[in-house]
Amino acid sequence: MSHVILSESQIDEGLSALPGWSYRAPNIEAKYEFANFRDAIAFIVQVAIQAEVMNHHPEFHNSWNKVSFSFCTHDVGNKITDTDIALAKHIDETAARFLSLKPKA
Amino acid sequence: MSHVILSESQIDEGLSALPGWSYRAPNIEAKYEFANFRDAIAFIVQVAIQAEVMNHHPEFHNSWNKVSFSFCTHDVGNKITDTDIALAKHIDETAARFLSLKPKA
Amino acid sequence: MSHVILSESQIDEGLSALPGWSYRAPNIEAKYEFANFRDAIAFIVQVAIQAEVMNHHPEFHNSWNKVSFSFCTHDVGNKITDTDIALAKHIDETAARFLSLKPKA
Amino acid sequence: MSHVILSESQIDEGLSALPGWSYRAPNIEAKYEFANFRDAIAFIVQVAIQAEVMNHHPEFHNSWNKVSFSFCTHDVGNKITDTDIALAKHIDETAARFLSLKPKA
Repeated sequence: MSHVILSESQIDEGLSALPGWSYRAPNIEAKYEFANFRDAIAFIVQVAIQAEVMNHHPEFHNSWNKVSFSFCTHDVGNKITDTDIALAKHIDETAARFLSLKPKA
Repeated sequence: MSHVILSESQIDEGLSALPGWSYRAPNIEAKYEFANFRDAIAFIVQVAIQAEVMNHHPEFHNSWNKVSFSFCTHDVGNKITDTDIALAKHIDETAARFLSLKPKA
Repeated sequence: MSHVILSESQIDEGLSALPGWSYRAPNIEAKYEFANFRDAIAFIVQVAIQAEVMNHHPEFHNSWNKVSFSFCTHDVGNKITDTDIALAKHIDETAARFLSLKPKA
Repeated sequence: MSHVILSESQIDEGLSALPGWSYRAPNIEAKYEFANFRDAIAFIVQVAIQAEVMNHHPEFHNSWNKVSFSFCTHDVGNKITDTDIALAKHIDETAARFLSLKPKA
């Protein structure tokens, strides 16, 4: 897969439709909160499937009902690319499939 | 865990609050349908967690977006017990957590 | 993805390197047995990832430590194709990654 | 579940049989490395099942083939308890079930 490196304004534009995602160089980041641990794990499994389909793997952290992400594209020297934005968009859509997703603070 | 074997009328009563579940001796059965394969897999992972928590494991079958169950309690000679009804209830509540669950035909 | 329909002798040849797999028209079939339920579930999650990567989804059945498969290619009228053999090969390699896989009877 | 708070020497003793685990107050920590992402995810699913069975949930972080843990017992004021050691032991045994587990550096 080829990656298109994004400028800072392109990153901002890409994340504008993704509330809760932000750019903290070199990564884009977000945190999702569910009603309980099991929904968080089911969500992680779904994200893992997408990661393999895209062959692009987000770093993530789980703390009971919370799952946080932080990633960039290593192959192009830790820059944010269109692939990162596409993955963030997919993660956000997947989270929204869960009834128990809590709104962003 | 001790199991209480149920009479046929107790089985009917236990399943009365679980539309889509039915008794076909020696098992109780149901089928759930989701919007896609990934939700079906996420659901299976959640059911698997509950199965280990209860130490009671339902047989299940997956066909893309569909997951069907069929089980009884082997330890008491393949009878339906209160444990089976409790597991069916939990499976039903878990399925209802998914936005993409399709209504029973 | 395009699928190549296989003749019966090509199916036999494809399965020859996959002990435990057999052709029972219209499906190819196999059963894997692990030491316990958790390994069976972990295996199912891995197979599910591959199914989405290939966009080819095997029907499977779980009974505690056993996972059985049965599938063909629906898109070409329920024939066995090269895609089915490729998926069977991948399932077999995945099962072999588990220390607790039991040898075929 | 009741938890027994451990002294620092009891923590050391508890971790002595768990190479790779260490105490960095207030948490105990370890990192496991597998051959690939899929094995890491399968491992996470198994740990998640155990977490629910014990009702004790480790914080964990995934980075492709690596899974790292860091946890203590919140209910007793972020101390290390016998429950933490029991969970660490179970995580270690689960990791060892994977053929692809890499030895600790």
